[in-house]
Amino acid sequence: MKQSQLLAPTLRDVPADAEAVSHQLLLRAGYIRQLAAGVYSLLPLGRRTLQRIESIIREEMESAGANEVLLPALQPAELWRESGRYEVYGDELIRLTDRGGREYALGPTHEEVVTSLIAQEVSSYRKLPLTVFQIQTKFRDERRPRFGLLRVREFLMKDAYSFDADWEGLHRSYETMYAAYHRIFSRLGLRYRAVLADAGAIGGEGGTHEFMALADVGEDTIIACTACEYAANLEKAEAAPLSHAISLDEHDGGTQALHKFATPGIRTIQELRDRMGIEPSQVIKTLLYLADGEPVAVLVRGDHEANETKIMNALGATSLELADADTVRNVTSAPVGFAGPVGLRARIIVDREAAAMTSAVTGANEEDSHYRNVVPGRDFHLEAVADLRNVQAGEACPQCGKELAAHRGIEIGHVFKLGTKYSSAMQASFTDAEGKENPFIMGCYGIGVTRLLSAMIEQHHDERGIVWPAEAAPFGVHLLPVSMKDDVQRELALKLYAQLRAAGMETLLDDRDERLGVKLKDADLIGIPARIVIGKGAAEGLVEFKSRQESDAELCSVEDALVRASAILGK
Amino acid sequence: MKQSQLLAPTLRDVPADAEAVSHQLLLRAGYIRQLAAGVYSLLPLGRRTLQRIESIIREEMESAGANEVLLPALQPAELWRESGRYEVYGDELIRLTDRGGREYALGPTHEEVVTSLIAQEVSSYRKLPLTVFQIQTKFRDERRPRFGLLRVREFLMKDAYSFDADWEGLHRSYETMYAAYHRIFSRLGLRYRAVLADAGAIGGEGGTHEFMALADVGEDTIIACTACEYAANLEKAEAAPLSHAISLDEHDGGTQALHKFATPGIRTIQELRDRMGIEPSQVIKTLLYLADGEPVAVLVRGDHEANETKIMNALGATSLELADADTVRNVTSAPVGFAGPVGLRARIIVDREAAAMTSAVTGANEEDSHYRNVVPGRDFHLEAVADLRNVQAGEACPQCGKELAAHRGIEIGHVFKLGTKYSSAMQASFTDAEGKENPFIMGCYGIGVTRLLSAMIEQHHDERGIVWPAEAAPFGVHLLPVSMKDDVQRELALKLYAQLRAAGMETLLDDRDERLGVKLKDADLIGIPARIVIGKGAAEGLVEFKSRQESDAELCSVEDALVRASAILGK
Repeated sequence: MKQSQLLAPTLRDVPADAEAVSHQLLLRAGYIRQLAAGVYSLLPLGRRTLQRIESIIREEMESAGANEVLLPALQPAELWRESGRYEVYGDELIRLTDRGGREYALGPTHEEVVTSLIAQEVSSYRKLPLTVFQIQTKFRDERRPRFGLLRVREFLMKDAYSFDADWEGLHRSYETMYAAYHRIFSRLGLRYRAVLADAGAIGGEGGTHEFMALADVGEDTIIACTACEYAANLEKAEAAPLSHAISLDEHDGGTQALHKFATPGIRTIQELRDRMGIEPSQVIKTLLYLADGEPVAVLVRGDHEANETKIMNALGATSLELADADTVRNVTSAPVGFAGPVGLRARIIVDREAAAMTSAVTGANEEDSHYRNVVPGRDFHLEAVADLRNVQAGEACPQCGKELAAHRGIEIGHVFKLGTKYSSAMQASFTDAEGKENPFIMGCYGIGVTRLLSAMIEQHHDERGIVWPAEAAPFGVHLLPVSMKDDVQRELALKLYAQLRAAGMETLLDDRDERLGVKLKDADLIGIPARIVIGKGAAEGLVEFKSRQESDAELCSVEDALVRASAILGK
Repeated sequence: MKQSQLLAPTLRDVPADAEAVSHQLLLRAGYIRQLAAGVYSLLPLGRRTLQRIESIIREEMESAGANEVLLPALQPAELWRESGRYEVYGDELIRLTDRGGREYALGPTHEEVVTSLIAQEVSSYRKLPLTVFQIQTKFRDERRPRFGLLRVREFLMKDAYSFDADWEGLHRSYETMYAAYHRIFSRLGLRYRAVLADAGAIGGEGGTHEFMALADVGEDTIIACTACEYAANLEKAEAAPLSHAISLDEHDGGTQALHKFATPGIRTIQELRDRMGIEPSQVIKTLLYLADGEPVAVLVRGDHEANETKIMNALGATSLELADADTVRNVTSAPVGFAGPVGLRARIIVDREAAAMTSAVTGANEEDSHYRNVVPGRDFHLEAVADLRNVQAGEACPQCGKELAAHRGIEIGHVFKLGTKYSSAMQASFTDAEGKENPFIMGCYGIGVTRLLSAMIEQHHDERGIVWPAEAAPFGVHLLPVSMKDDVQRELALKLYAQLRAAGMETLLDDRDERLGVKLKDADLIGIPARIVIGKGAAEGLVEFKSRQESDAELCSVEDALVRASAILGK
């Protein structure tokens, strides 16, 4: 394509309200423009790149045997009521009413639609397994859209759904998709990890993995072993087991008696350390929650963070929120900041590390007072002991015992064993070999297609702009004649342009009437893998070749430039 | 692809509620399923065909120099208020409110979004001309969705928008798109006409053409010359000029005096003929309208139909509706059915043919009475004479005088010179060579991508199913081994399957455990251009080849079958 005809408005300055590097570069290089909060127009370079990503995904889905479909965004509210999600989904679900007064949801995802479709069309086990996928626009009314394309309200997603006759089949379908996801993200040149995720909150009965692109701007924390393959998101990552087992009844510590002491105005772990010299690791924090509306105390060590996913799983609760001040006063008889387990009027569950302490400091359920020498099991009853805290970098791997590291990640994919969650709720069943009706065993598999654009740029850029890996680049070669008014340069440029395209290399020809400096700056911003500058050497058949990944350009023959370009692009 | 893995549920019976052939076949051949009124899921065969169509459109748009973008469906209501369309658009515009209470329209079209985008990004004439396009989902809350994909509420559309510095430029951009549309529809194997359409109603200042696929199910009427190139939609088609000119003042007829006669209970042209023996061509119909709220009488000959588009254009009105009974009684002093021009209290405009009558029958503005010997100009005042009626098949072509024919058509494309309608309303301007600010001169160009599926099937089917033209078919070759359990047949089938795909022919292998009769019936329904049946002849290297367009299959060698398939597919 000729750049004079391309709508790619580049910006010299960093846009003031763009925090993430990828957001800045997408704006500066002219890939996207915002229309409303979390709603973006994709300009030609953005659209092209997205299409490259789409076709890689499509290829891998097809080679994994998935059927491409296109399901509607307008989804009757009745379907969402059948699955039970219409009320539960909350403000993120965009709702609307048609001219006849019928209610619709604007699809944030398609479990309901696909389950009802397959229930209608597939009645026998002989048509299973079956996997369908689509690449389609999704709508989610995010509370805080941000970071450019990373968190938006309208975006392209690849979603796939598998239908199996039994769990064995689901495991196979899941493995097939899991492998396809690895191929997709590898082809896109991403540094990523497939991490264990928690299934409980979303409601499936099976396993689930998230695919996380590693990037500092990522909103998720990944815990990964530095030695073995273990990786999980923070919600799911297990703490290594203690070296000794904890019993709820017997305690070997506790030689010193419980002792109340004055802590005027001291309400936090931080204040205990700063003003009383008590280390956080000597303290047991008492966190009061409402789990499905009932007060529960969760104890973790003062230097640990509670993990609400683990707490919910331990309690079998479907909702969890920190208790309000009234509840705190009710169960502790004290103002907020002095809660402790001794004499508390609530169920108490304890993290393993806190349960293992033999002389802890806790709140005394009394204003301006704390206890010392608190012994779990002696001074208060432990209803349950479990892993209830976030793992931290530097801890031991639960699998191999070596050191864990923490990373920030962008969720780019998610594979999930749904089991019968939707098929049971929506009466979607098939007839098995014995003539019995069974609900489909389902899996769902998502990739945030639009978000991939941002994730890739977060990983592939330098201080001058985007640095596209070959498979995802909007163009393969960027041709820059210094001056299209120079006959020799223009002729060579047009000849090379034709040759490159004939060789299957998509080429952008900068035929604009701009200074070379401007052209070079724009080229660096846009990030096309191979750059060929045609200048004074044109008369002798010499051009300047540069890979966007390398810092230096080299003078070489036209033939050589063609060879190098095709090597970079794998053509 | 292997058919055992394909979700293509065929139906033997014609679905009861599907009137159009294309609707029946799309359902029966397993291309689509309905989710809600006018909202369809595209199953794999439908999705594949749509993708073939999309890529042809994309190729032709790119070769016409258009930039592909992807604009949001969620469009802030403010933009629609700026253009003035938010209130005017009516119930077809789907409106919604986000969690913050902000209003949005769900894009039925993208003039507002693209105008605001280009206004922000293009400030100088040096970046013009510029054409952008997208292939994207549109939402329109149609009052009466019907005929399968022909009239739906959610659909894929290709829309393009051109931006020029002057009208000369717009004419060129328009011609470029016009030519690209011809290439697209030709490649899709469609019988179609590009017809003149009326620009007034949509509000542009320039010309406009509709591309109409010829089909009996079409909701539009096309008037086309049987001799020359003249073609227009019914709203626009001109009546040939009269052989003699009409003057508003002088009349050569009218020797007989106006005569009132009794017509008890006779209120229609039909009743005048049946009960009084008066031919419709001797009658002047008086139609009472409210044009922008004001009563206006429109006179046409009794055997002619009024054309509301022409009436609006003649009056310069922006709204037109038939007058209510109260208005009729007010201006005629009579009940509905007896209106006439003599003594009428309203403006009167007259179709040319009615104005040329020298002795007409009309209503007498009195219950149960009509006039004879009415002479326009003598017995009532003509405010204006113009072409105000629908042209009929058999009339003379306004261009060459030969006979006109009428066709039914499906609107598949529309090219439109918008001029400054949006750029003026939305203050979208650029700086010209003299440093002056001017509004962009715009064009817009649409193709109903989803609808094309139906239009193509309306034209390409037989009593057994769909008959795809090669370029749009979901697969090129359908391979039908009689039995995959037969070793020889299975081996040959798999070998051919690999060979065909290696030669770039997309192939569907019917590996299902079904009787040959079922396989053949499904193959005919699905409509893949080349069919190869592998049966008993496999041992001698013989197969049965059949083009879907022909009725007979022929036994031939495997090599021959490959050659024939590639000839049909142009590979």
